Amino acid sequence: MTISVAVAGASGYAGGEILRLLLGHPRVQSGEVTIGALTAGGNAGSPLGVHHPNLLPLAQRVLQETTPEVLAGHDVVFLGLPHGTSATIADALPPTTLIIDCGADFRLTDAHEWETYYGGEHAGTWPYGLPELPGNREKLESASRIAVPGCYPTVSILSLLPALTNGLVDPHVTVVAVSGSSGAGRSLKVDLLASEVIGSARAYGVGGAHRHTPEITQALSEAADSPVSVSFTPVLAPMSRGILATCTARTAASESEIRSAYEKAYADEPFVHLLPEGQLPATSSVIGSNAVQISVSVDDRAGTLVAVGAVDNLTKGTGGAAVQSMNLALGFAETEGLTTVGVAP
Amino acid sequence: MTISVAVAGASGYAGGEILRLLLGHPRVQSGEVTIGALTAGGNAGSPLGVHHPNLLPLAQRVLQETTPEVLAGHDVVFLGLPHGTSATIADALPPTTLIIDCGADFRLTDAHEWETYYGGEHAGTWPYGLPELPGNREKLESASRIAVPGCYPTVSILSLLPALTNGLVDPHVTVVAVSGSSGAGRSLKVDLLASEVIGSARAYGVGGAHRHTPEITQALSEAADSPVSVSFTPVLAPMSRGILATCTARTAASESEIRSAYEKAYADEPFVHLLPEGQLPATSSVIGSNAVQISVSVDDRAGTLVAVGAVDNLTKGTGGAAVQSMNLALGFAETEGLTTVGVAP
Amino acid sequence: MTISVAVAGASGYAGGEILRLLLGHPRVQSGEVTIGALTAGGNAGSPLGVHHPNLLPLAQRVLQETTPEVLAGHDVVFLGLPHGTSATIADALPPTTLIIDCGADFRLTDAHEWETYYGGEHAGTWPYGLPELPGNREKLESASRIAVPGCYPTVSILSLLPALTNGLVDPHVTVVAVSGSSGAGRSLKVDLLASEVIGSARAYGVGGAHRHTPEITQALSEAADSPVSVSFTPVLAPMSRGILATCTARTAASESEIRSAYEKAYADEPFVHLLPEGQLPATSSVIGSNAVQISVSVDDRAGTLVAVGAVDNLTKGTGGAAVQSMNLALGFAETEGLTTVGVAP
Amino acid sequence: MTISVAVAGASGYAGGEILRLLLGHPRVQSGEVTIGALTAGGNAGSPLGVHHPNLLPLAQRVLQETTPEVLAGHDVVFLGLPHGTSATIADALPPTTLIIDCGADFRLTDAHEWETYYGGEHAGTWPYGLPELPGNREKLESASRIAVPGCYPTVSILSLLPALTNGLVDPHVTVVAVSGSSGAGRSLKVDLLASEVIGSARAYGVGGAHRHTPEITQALSEAADSPVSVSFTPVLAPMSRGILATCTARTAASESEIRSAYEKAYADEPFVHLLPEGQLPATSSVIGSNAVQISVSVDDRAGTLVAVGAVDNLTKGTGGAAVQSMNLALGFAETEGLTTVGVAP
Repeated sequence: MTISVAVAGASGYAGGEILRLLLGHPRVQSGEVTIGALTAGGNAGSPLGVHHPNLLPLAQRVLQETTPEVLAGHDVVFLGLPHGTSATIADALPPTTLIIDCGADFRLTDAHEWETYYGGEHAGTWPYGLPELPGNREKLESASRIAVPGCYPTVSILSLLPALTNGLVDPHVTVVAVSGSSGAGRSLKVDLLASEVIGSARAYGVGGAHRHTPEITQALSEAADSPVSVSFTPVLAPMSRGILATCTARTAASESEIRSAYEKAYADEPFVHLLPEGQLPATSSVIGSNAVQISVSVDDRAGTLVAVGAVDNLTKGTGGAAVQSMNLALGFAETEGLTTVGVAP
Repeated sequence: MTISVAVAGASGYAGGEILRLLLGHPRVQSGEVTIGALTAGGNAGSPLGVHHPNLLPLAQRVLQETTPEVLAGHDVVFLGLPHGTSATIADALPPTTLIIDCGADFRLTDAHEWETYYGGEHAGTWPYGLPELPGNREKLESASRIAVPGCYPTVSILSLLPALTNGLVDPHVTVVAVSGSSGAGRSLKVDLLASEVIGSARAYGVGGAHRHTPEITQALSEAADSPVSVSFTPVLAPMSRGILATCTARTAASESEIRSAYEKAYADEPFVHLLPEGQLPATSSVIGSNAVQISVSVDDRAGTLVAVGAVDNLTKGTGGAAVQSMNLALGFAETEGLTTVGVAP
Repeated sequence: MTISVAVAGASGYAGGEILRLLLGHPRVQSGEVTIGALTAGGNAGSPLGVHHPNLLPLAQRVLQETTPEVLAGHDVVFLGLPHGTSATIADALPPTTLIIDCGADFRLTDAHEWETYYGGEHAGTWPYGLPELPGNREKLESASRIAVPGCYPTVSILSLLPALTNGLVDPHVTVVAVSGSSGAGRSLKVDLLASEVIGSARAYGVGGAHRHTPEITQALSEAADSPVSVSFTPVLAPMSRGILATCTARTAASESEIRSAYEKAYADEPFVHLLPEGQLPATSSVIGSNAVQISVSVDDRAGTLVAVGAVDNLTKGTGGAAVQSMNLALGFAETEGLTTVGVAP
Repeated sequence: MTISVAVAGASGYAGGEILRLLLGHPRVQSGEVTIGALTAGGNAGSPLGVHHPNLLPLAQRVLQETTPEVLAGHDVVFLGLPHGTSATIADALPPTTLIIDCGADFRLTDAHEWETYYGGEHAGTWPYGLPELPGNREKLESASRIAVPGCYPTVSILSLLPALTNGLVDPHVTVVAVSGSSGAGRSLKVDLLASEVIGSARAYGVGGAHRHTPEITQALSEAADSPVSVSFTPVLAPMSRGILATCTARTAASESEIRSAYEKAYADEPFVHLLPEGQLPATSSVIGSNAVQISVSVDDRAGTLVAVGAVDNLTKGTGGAAVQSMNLALGFAETEGLTTVGVAP
């Protein structure tokens, strides 16, 4: 019996990345999983190849409207939709359908926080698709609803997690994360035009204004089991993919203590890689890959830990996390169809 | 019985790309093919992870010296070496070893041409690793020595081939090919520094001076069975991967005649994709993929065919062609371990 | 008595570049020329600093509506408006107002050509703001209406002009021009998003479809005094500014004959620079500058001239040409406020 | 009587930028200042145009050897030399020669710090070419030896100065600064190749290892008159010019208090621009300009100040600061030949 998968928002970047990964997934190649309906909003009616000419095997597939009717009848539905729109779709699908939402609707536990940052009404909270959080993998294995983490949270959380859960740093952390433009999605904004982005770095969402701030805070506070304050600043850099997060916190611990904690925390994680001493992460190492590469350094003079993490915002930061979550929920091996090998240079 | 593969020049871009593709190759994943010696020149002694941090599963592998002794005993040897150095290695290995050379030493049939463009003595001519040339696939299936085409020639030849073999265009062709910087290899030259390349487009090797000119001329003349003259101008653009070749030739044929010829020529080719009318190739569509995407347009006023081809210079332009050639020579399916799906955006 | 200048379309790239140059113009710095109304369409009412934070001295200036009333009363009016909208404004201003239009409305002499490429009705023909064309400088000195050339035409025409006017090449020319994204203006199109442009080269407007084709053809045919056919292909590359045009034509002339013709043609031109033998143009050399750098090479085997030209599409390609035209029409020195020094790297 | 200026290290990026600015300097254009010897190391004997094709008016100038003899007899000597080599040159020139050193040799007051970070013997301390530091402008006006600040220190110091001198933040500050590649100079290193830099962000010099750390610490501690600890992390991004520094420190002050302090501190500074509320700096706004654009935001939840500064590392970060220092030392207006208008997009 085959498992059918639908992708809503297939003409966007998240949808495209999910499809890229599914096309290389062994269960799709064997026919055990089939790619069903591909849907879109304004782009419905046009062939996928116009929007994702890189997805040659699906180029002739015509995009359908994103409606519950079109999505119904699939075993798995990936949602790559604008914030605030997933709940309506989800409510109209059977509870047994595995729904994996790449949007923010079901990530936060605190309704007030959600409403402050996103507006509108909080739709609820789903299991958080970051299996690397303590105790979380099991929840995903039995989930039929999964909220894929934001791209900035994924790399920020994983870069700081062992330091905080082991009480090795002050709970006031600073994250400055340099991102490529695809993190902002395929939206028509002047600030995202090539002419504005190329040759320039600029900060945005400064001072706690970025929507990923409460998400990072929530995950780190829960994992540390005590409040963590997060100063988060995203910086847009002229590249299409990749996030490099520089995370600092004051510490009295030594670099070797901290390194031990990270080694222990991630020893069995297939996608989190602590770099050897002296090596620092670059986003080019993880493009197209589901790996997060992390370095830890202690600045003895300044008394700070500097943990730097690199991730592909579209792969482990979105589409790869979605497929990883699907693998867990369907009982496949967690790493199927995902790689730790990046496309570089 | 396993097949062992060595890569000479593993710290360079061609070597790294071959390894990236081998790591995803089903025969490697099943253990039927094993990755043996990885060798280098000046980088011997250091771990591969320092040079290719994207190749996580091989990061701890230590590079050995590129010598016949180290390479001996492997069933397949990929060479990613400076021009003029492959012959010495090849001569010292058994004739049954499958040697796949990514350098230029064995590409040209005319010794005089080779010596004019490369200097030194012509080492000979090996079967040319472009299976899409008429009658060439069979030669590769029985070869134990293969010369992988240059990156510019691959896309230029494939973009013009059906027009020339069907006599649809004047045999004086013009190719202006925009390339990313990785085509120049990992060599320390001021012109290749990021500060020089970013924000700039510049021509080089103008006026027939580029070494790929005789290679393009040779393949097109042989295929057309009559002399073709090629005006070839490479342009360096600020991207790391990808070539977009704009190929023009005067024509009296209609666009539909030309389109038919291309459709017929490439109908069964797994890696050559003729885009539908109205769609034009972009290099982002083929990054990391072994596909060549081609468009054909006829400018009726100017009386010219404009064929535009996009390729990833490191994949189908080098490492992918090498793996494709290996597949053919070892009797595997030609497409194993290769994809037509690019990493975009 | 001061001369007042208005800029319509001040929030766009052409408008911004004109203002950048005016701020450094000695007549503005001395107060002899004043910067008056800055107008916009949808951006009217907002401060200029939001749109052009690089223009610090004008950051607080509020954009007004683009209407004849607002523009009236200025001695010079620069128009950086969408195609097809300049005529209405121009008709409503006094004939003595110096109007310099950066749009395409008044560039073509052939109404049918204009209507084919732009749609709507042809508005007329104004003196063409390319003083380097034979006999053209004088026309501009007495003009009160000037049509600034397109960016691609400027570099294409200047790169081929001496070869054609001296009958040194076949009149069938091929131009493949690699451009940065700002040439497309500040318009919200998916194709111009950073994520689409970065890391990619793509052709567009292939087969004679680009609107600059008839403009190049017109200027070259007029200058050569006989029909020239032009195969023009624009290629978008990941940079914000700059065009590199590779221009080829079959020739029987020697490189030294051709070089002599170019030297003679451009000896007295302040902004056209023929590079010495062995040097090839790069767009980085002309960023922010009004210079065009050109190389000429003859490929003896292919029997072709390869002339390569580099220009900043926003400076000599638009705003610089506009200021150069203003200088001529107002009787200033042609080079005032313009430089041949680029910002590199 | 004319003032003659020499530039040592003219083929490097700092030297090229100084020449770019001098070519546009009114005193050079009037002939009052003349550009004398241009010297280099390995590039001596070649024309400047080969190395800086953007500096057209000086393209034919031949580079001389960097020796005291060649530099002697000039009134002003700019040094853009490798660290550790300026002292020998300086010692051999008369004390009345105005020497402006773009290297690090004379920036630090603490010999031990210098030796820890740079090796070799500390050469001494010269007036620090950052006139915006309290009380510093006067020192530069009477100086004949000036040490131009490093690029990262310039923007980091100016972004944090008013907060620290007014005691508004905790003295433990964090700076994460994203830089283009030209900050690393024109040196042949694999890490600086276009293929490595394009499409990637990577941290380096993490954990206090970067040489600019003690320089930032020194200036901020002196200005605050008490020890400041600095956690400094530089990040290389795929752009050629520009630094965006995100500076955070814990604070109990309100945003308006902090804003007032910055307004007051920089009210009369011609090159430091505090952005209005709601606007954030982008490096594209300052390319080629001598301006620093700064925003301040307070994150009330995290209790932190986030000050973001943008600078062109080659202009205000090096060559512009050098010319600004020259202006002060020669009694010219401080802003001559410098602009606050950037080249964007």
